[in-house]
Amino acid sequence: MNVNIRGLSRCELETLKTQLDAAYADFRARKLKLDMSRGKPAPDQLDACSGILTSPFGSFRAEDGTDARNYGVLEGLPEAKRYFGELLGLDPARIIVGGSASLNLMYDMMMRLYVFGVGGNPPWRKCGKVKFLCPSPGYDRHFAITEELGFEMIVVPMTPTGPDMDEVERLVADPEVKGIWCVPLYSNPQGVCYSDETVKRLGRMKCAAPDFKIFWDNAYGVHHLYGETPLCDIFEACEAGGNPERAYYFFSTSKITFPGGGVSIFATGYGEHAEIVRRLGIQTISYDKLNQLRTVRFLKDKATTMKHMEKMAEFLRPKFDTVLSALERELAGTGLAEWTNPRGGYFVAVDVLPGCAKRVVELAADAGVKLTGAGATYPLHRDPADSNLRIAPSYPSVAELAQAMELFCLAVKLAAVEKLLNA
Amino acid sequence: MNVNIRGLSRCELETLKTQLDAAYADFRARKLKLDMSRGKPAPDQLDACSGILTSPFGSFRAEDGTDARNYGVLEGLPEAKRYFGELLGLDPARIIVGGSASLNLMYDMMMRLYVFGVGGNPPWRKCGKVKFLCPSPGYDRHFAITEELGFEMIVVPMTPTGPDMDEVERLVADPEVKGIWCVPLYSNPQGVCYSDETVKRLGRMKCAAPDFKIFWDNAYGVHHLYGETPLCDIFEACEAGGNPERAYYFFSTSKITFPGGGVSIFATGYGEHAEIVRRLGIQTISYDKLNQLRTVRFLKDKATTMKHMEKMAEFLRPKFDTVLSALERELAGTGLAEWTNPRGGYFVAVDVLPGCAKRVVELAADAGVKLTGAGATYPLHRDPADSNLRIAPSYPSVAELAQAMELFCLAVKLAAVEKLLNA
Repeated sequence: MNVNIRGLSRCELETLKTQLDAAYADFRARKLKLDMSRGKPAPDQLDACSGILTSPFGSFRAEDGTDARNYGVLEGLPEAKRYFGELLGLDPARIIVGGSASLNLMYDMMMRLYVFGVGGNPPWRKCGKVKFLCPSPGYDRHFAITEELGFEMIVVPMTPTGPDMDEVERLVADPEVKGIWCVPLYSNPQGVCYSDETVKRLGRMKCAAPDFKIFWDNAYGVHHLYGETPLCDIFEACEAGGNPERAYYFFSTSKITFPGGGVSIFATGYGEHAEIVRRLGIQTISYDKLNQLRTVRFLKDKATTMKHMEKMAEFLRPKFDTVLSALERELAGTGLAEWTNPRGGYFVAVDVLPGCAKRVVELAADAGVKLTGAGATYPLHRDPADSNLRIAPSYPSVAELAQAMELFCLAVKLAAVEKLLNA
Repeated sequence: MNVNIRGLSRCELETLKTQLDAAYADFRARKLKLDMSRGKPAPDQLDACSGILTSPFGSFRAEDGTDARNYGVLEGLPEAKRYFGELLGLDPARIIVGGSASLNLMYDMMMRLYVFGVGGNPPWRKCGKVKFLCPSPGYDRHFAITEELGFEMIVVPMTPTGPDMDEVERLVADPEVKGIWCVPLYSNPQGVCYSDETVKRLGRMKCAAPDFKIFWDNAYGVHHLYGETPLCDIFEACEAGGNPERAYYFFSTSKITFPGGGVSIFATGYGEHAEIVRRLGIQTISYDKLNQLRTVRFLKDKATTMKHMEKMAEFLRPKFDTVLSALERELAGTGLAEWTNPRGGYFVAVDVLPGCAKRVVELAADAGVKLTGAGATYPLHRDPADSNLRIAPSYPSVAELAQAMELFCLAVKLAAVEKLLNA
């Protein structure tokens, strides 16, 4: 059992600091070079997908006879739409199959709203101030898009069932609030899964902006580690609430097959679909249908994909276990950190003592372990408490991760002790 | 030798019309179903590229050790940059390797200029009226982008050496004129190649707008049919003229390997490169590096690619010959049409009697041959003379094309005779 470090006397803290400094010096001497900064699949996961690349391509024709090697079929091949529809419980008619990056689809949709407006609403660039809800901690690349467009980003606290919905409902009464970023399953970085009630409230809440949009990035929609967590259908929730065009749904195979080499999709309300496809048709002629065929032939159907994801989970579980057991062993009871126990996804979030997160990242970096930058999980990289850290356990091996976590916990303690001594 | 139909008497025209009507009725009875509307490679061309899909993938690692199956390397793999650099005579440091569509790169760059501005200049959305020069006839998808953004599109006549540069130089004295669309080699649809003097004048001309941009879509840069046509280096021309950031250079393998399934590139001035890459990094994490490897390993280097393009030319030359010999046989000397003799690219442009182009397309369509819509080669689909038609000979077989061209020439005559009788 660990002692509560916050309860130590100054003298005890000094003693502890001497021990921690020595341990830290040892670590630095090991000259580690590990990266826990981004949610990248490990090589063994990628190897388990390499059938996509190594198996014979087969026919170049899609099931409707389309030659996938030539121009055409802007919205995606029928088998690709059907595949994603089955996998995610989406009507294929809602789906546009994109290129290798769902982030790009999100960015493009935000640009359409900003430059052109959608559904007869004025473009956001003409709306004066635009505010966007950013449940935080959240995904830095989401926030970077709304930052790029100069939107005011409003931090909404996360709860174990999703964003604080009382706060969200209060905020959307402001007509300048135009949308919200959501990662509804195994959220980045906490692994929060939105409850049915959260999804339903998002669908039915009264928004002052008629073109309020939910950017529903279901990035980890099938990325379960310990069995399936159900997720309420956002389109149904929006329709039930009388807001059928409220949600844009994004998904990709980046963490099912190859990051940056998979297939992304974008699903919309029925009312806006044709308009979005028309604008998309100005932007490009068609996405890479060969990769659609390749990917869908490998992943086949929901059953095959879930089996594949179970294989992926077998690679990932020991890594999550390594992270969580290190946190438990080193930090439980110390009063220095709180963390989540995600049931899927790619991240573990740790809250350290306020004012210590940046220092932890610095200490880890100086000893050769790269963490996601402190603050990255908040808009403008500003964590008001300087407390939240994101651990991305997927890329290193279990052995490397064990070392990195040992250092991480040491850095958390060292930063805290420094802080307590300077208080 | 054909008679000059414009010199016929009313009575002779009536007789001719009776013959043409009969021939046209015969054609309709054949129930053709041919498409000459878009510049799509034919299946045999695609088959000649299928090694990309059927040969073993080989190592997933790029030459610098990057695992192409994972995230990263936003600007493109080093071997891809080097390959395109050698092929096109571009410094690899200028190059960003994109996804499967150069049109998308053009659209995205136009959006950056519109929304954010580049190089310290204000965004075009804040510039009041924006005018864009559209050498016409030109590429409909270019014009669709500038139409989408509400720019005023100014038609600049084409000459055998490129856009009418006296006119261009006169127009760019207007600070509202912000850019020009260019397809410098084998232009779509006329097959015009810009002379050295044209390129140099584009580079050095005095533009009132400090952020005047040349969208240099070298789509057919290596798509020679009868040996290489040299093209002056646009970056050199701009640098020599003291305007090093003036040109954006686009290219893709869409008509080298697979349309919509190849690799695109975007090259910029050195001064704006970092800024553009930074904005690109908000939009996406990385493009499909697996397809970069696949494509570059197949096309290898300039010598291999030029050999491959010679094979492509062997497929295309008989088709161009079929089109041009039909035009020569049926329409030379009739006074009803003028056309170009492209030395490369994907199109032949035909100017029919003013006021007849739409009718030709209609007559062809009613007899089962789909042509590119009349007017498509002008901004807003408005050909002021209703005269220009684009023939895309690549997709049909030579035998189909021979039939389609017979019908085309018949339709040109019939539309003209109708017009002359109604005059």
